[in-house]
Amino acid sequence: MGREGFFITLEGGDGAGKTTVLGRVAAYLQNHSMPYIITREPGGIEIAEKIRSIILDPAHTAMDSRTEALLYAAARSQHLAEVVEPALQQGLTVLCDRFVDSSLVYQGHARGLGIEQVRSINEFATGGRKPDLTFYLDVDPEVGLARIAANQEREINRLDLENLAFHQKVRQGYQLVVESDPGRVVVLDANRPIHMVEQDIVRTLKERILKDF
Amino acid sequence: MGREGFFITLEGGDGAGKTTVLGRVAAYLQNHSMPYIITREPGGIEIAEKIRSIILDPAHTAMDSRTEALLYAAARSQHLAEVVEPALQQGLTVLCDRFVDSSLVYQGHARGLGIEQVRSINEFATGGRKPDLTFYLDVDPEVGLARIAANQEREINRLDLENLAFHQKVRQGYQLVVESDPGRVVVLDANRPIHMVEQDIVRTLKERILKDF
Repeated sequence: MGREGFFITLEGGDGAGKTTVLGRVAAYLQNHSMPYIITREPGGIEIAEKIRSIILDPAHTAMDSRTEALLYAAARSQHLAEVVEPALQQGLTVLCDRFVDSSLVYQGHARGLGIEQVRSINEFATGGRKPDLTFYLDVDPEVGLARIAANQEREINRLDLENLAFHQKVRQGYQLVVESDPGRVVVLDANRPIHMVEQDIVRTLKERILKDF
Repeated sequence: MGREGFFITLEGGDGAGKTTVLGRVAAYLQNHSMPYIITREPGGIEIAEKIRSIILDPAHTAMDSRTEALLYAAARSQHLAEVVEPALQQGLTVLCDRFVDSSLVYQGHARGLGIEQVRSINEFATGGRKPDLTFYLDVDPEVGLARIAANQEREINRLDLENLAFHQKVRQGYQLVVESDPGRVVVLDANRPIHMVEQDIVRTLKERILKDF
């Protein structure tokens, strides 16, 4: 057995630029000959996909919010067991688009189930596995909305503005959740142009990952 | 709004006589004009049934034991939200065949996930709802096995004996779990003939339930 791979997660609200950043991190790893996988739950894993389809089924309007949080945790534990853990054991770096922090923020804070309550079921789901490094892309919700509208080649509409309060709650949740764990989470100001965000990412990867190689 | 109904659960290993006892409790409630429902998870609730079908699908041999425990907890929270809570709010007595104690015993103790770990996800799933009264039917696994074989009109076979160690572990789990909460759980010696068990049940119902009416 060689050494375990690095487990890196990406977090942030809509329009923060997660997809772009994921590509930049991947390019960096490739340039430094570090084998990696990119994944996100449910990740094509049959059991996890079936669980996710129960969550998303539009017929399930009666779904209790606790049931939903438990189902997200169940899909997470299966994805972890079938994708993340085997890859880490093989020494691959795992880039995961969203992880426990998203549940704490969306279910725990924004939906009001309680951050600590959602944390407890996720500690069970992950068996204590934590990311080695998390990039949190912090973006002003108005900037994020403007980016989404621009990507879709349209104006900001009434629904966008109604969603603004929710996005603000999500951002507040991230501030509570990820900024409380500075040893793991690197907060990136994603209001800036992407090339500036990228400089911070490269510096972090050099300091935190490459030094060990 | 009138008063809330009583929430009564039944627990015990195979061959303990849960089904028979459930019928006796129901008859008692009926004789005393106390409206009740009998249920067990997933209880015909669509979302809970779909969750259960993922657990039981024989194709899912790769299911992680944590995923399984989270799915049981998810089915529980939905059954609670759609069946148990509304009935209790209407003032109905709810008789539930197995509840949290079963998960603590089977997943937590017998399958080795840890009683306290499984308790934590179930506290989330139930939002703190606890039975007012639990009957635990304690039976010697060898007596239970003999009853099952007799019901099926056959001899005890090799598989029964191989299962004996598991049933002994289940009984040990129940002793750890339910006997630690004597205010809620009434332990019944189910090695005795059913009419003797029934006398204990009637006495308990008189003391704990009927006095409030």
